[in-house]
Amino acid sequence: MITKIDHLGIAVRSLDEAVPYYENALGLKCEHREEVASQKVRTAFFTAGETHIELLEPTSPDSPIAKFLEKNPAGGVHHVAFATTDIGGQLKQAAGAGVKLIHEVPFEGAAGKLVAFLHPKSTYGVLTELCAPKA
Amino acid sequence: MITKIDHLGIAVRSLDEAVPYYENALGLKCEHREEVASQKVRTAFFTAGETHIELLEPTSPDSPIAKFLEKNPAGGVHHVAFATTDIGGQLKQAAGAGVKLIHEVPFEGAAGKLVAFLHPKSTYGVLTELCAPKA
Repeated sequence: MITKIDHLGIAVRSLDEAVPYYENALGLKCEHREEVASQKVRTAFFTAGETHIELLEPTSPDSPIAKFLEKNPAGGVHHVAFATTDIGGQLKQAAGAGVKLIHEVPFEGAAGKLVAFLHPKSTYGVLTELCAPKA
Repeated sequence: MITKIDHLGIAVRSLDEAVPYYENALGLKCEHREEVASQKVRTAFFTAGETHIELLEPTSPDSPIAKFLEKNPAGGVHHVAFATTDIGGQLKQAAGAGVKLIHEVPFEGAAGKLVAFLHPKSTYGVLTELCAPKA
């Protein structure tokens, strides 16, 4: 069962430009910055209510975020992550409804969460992540 | 102060195609459908935790959502709406931080909420709405 929107992944050209906007214009607090070498991104985290906002800056031209920014030069929402109580069951439900999965088996993402992505061709343009606390 | 993400506005070509995806693949429930003539859209509402998901299908080629779909034919996240306790103060704070405002004065949106949009040129590609319950 989906319980909330866990986070929004937002592609930006530069954390050094975008972080001050989230801090000064929206009044949100940057809680954490981290480089994720495997995804070729630098990230900055904010929280609004129960949802995190994850800014993603590419560290290499072959980062998935760099490719997104080629199509959307100003930046934008790269993915929406839903928290689920049962990621295996949720993936099965999605597949049963005809959704193409990027990951048939969840893998361990940040903070020990299990995560998997649905294919945007099946999700009406929104790259969709499912995530669950590790059992 | 921003308290949560109130809703995501997601552009889709067809509610009749996208609603079953949200219902059957994600297990969310379509709570309400409504045509908003002023915005030239048909909408369908879902809820995930404290955040609503608002699917937006254009009813006319000159709808803002039709223009978004020209650039993003598969659909995608059109806007992110933050709930704030003080929309006037939040707009002032954003303007003071150099953000261009689409609406300098909030107007009454759906469900009696006061809403205003920040300009995406100032918000690193994410069309951003602020909204507040009507005082």
